[in-house]
Amino acid sequence: MTTDEVQAYLYENIPLSRAMGIEVTTAKRQKVVLSIPLEPNINHRETAFGGSMSAAATLACWILLHLRLLEVPGDIRLVIHKNKVVYRSPIKGRFTAVCHLRDEAAWSHFLSMLDRWDKAKIILKSHLEYEGIQAGEFSGSFVALRA
Amino acid sequence: MTTDEVQAYLYENIPLSRAMGIEVTTAKRQKVVLSIPLEPNINHRETAFGGSMSAAATLACWILLHLRLLEVPGDIRLVIHKNKVVYRSPIKGRFTAVCHLRDEAAWSHFLSMLDRWDKAKIILKSHLEYEGIQAGEFSGSFVALRA
Repeated sequence: MTTDEVQAYLYENIPLSRAMGIEVTTAKRQKVVLSIPLEPNINHRETAFGGSMSAAATLACWILLHLRLLEVPGDIRLVIHKNKVVYRSPIKGRFTAVCHLRDEAAWSHFLSMLDRWDKAKIILKSHLEYEGIQAGEFSGSFVALRA
Repeated sequence: MTTDEVQAYLYENIPLSRAMGIEVTTAKRQKVVLSIPLEPNINHRETAFGGSMSAAATLACWILLHLRLLEVPGDIRLVIHKNKVVYRSPIKGRFTAVCHLRDEAAWSHFLSMLDRWDKAKIILKSHLEYEGIQAGEFSGSFVALRA
């Protein structure tokens, strides 16, 4: 999938991403970057609403896993099981949500568990950047289930 | 503030709440209940998007704290510091986000810390209900700062 295809898929399947004005700027199997405008995600203090920060961080991880799971045969359902978010500093303008997956050993383990049990869990991290500052950190536990 | 006033405040100050179609059904100092339609919050599996579940749970807690902090003199800034969410079961229709604050001792402690240090932290929980099932749990650490 190209970046444009991921963008279209996102807007079609998760309408809140459109309401949030999320732009997919990088969509690769190693790295996903989303760019998020402040305006639709603003709060009463004119900074980014925590719920928007968390949702953007969730989507960055979800897209990366979705892209990788396209490589795997069969109908696989991907669900989030739990997550933690730390909000470190206020965001006062356009920000990004960045998910890297560098640990290929964790991915291989995930795939072998999925192959063996038709179910596997992986923990993925993402972070929120605003003007070069790491404004928030997200860690999510995602579960894949083969139909 | 009446329920309608809270609703209007929410839509005006946190526009994502309007995009999510959140309806404030109870807004009391002991309990806040929000009702959330599935459609604007749907995901690729036609269940509620985790980011929407988390944002709704955050708002239920935030509104309850906001209402209580209106009773406290001075300009107080309320920010979320961190949160955890557990997603227990898929949500396939309109759902609610419910925040209760029953621990009045914790609230009194929070107020005395705020009075003493102009800064205080409180942990608040909320949950997501769908057809009588507890579909998710949220726990957030909120910080109040007096200007």
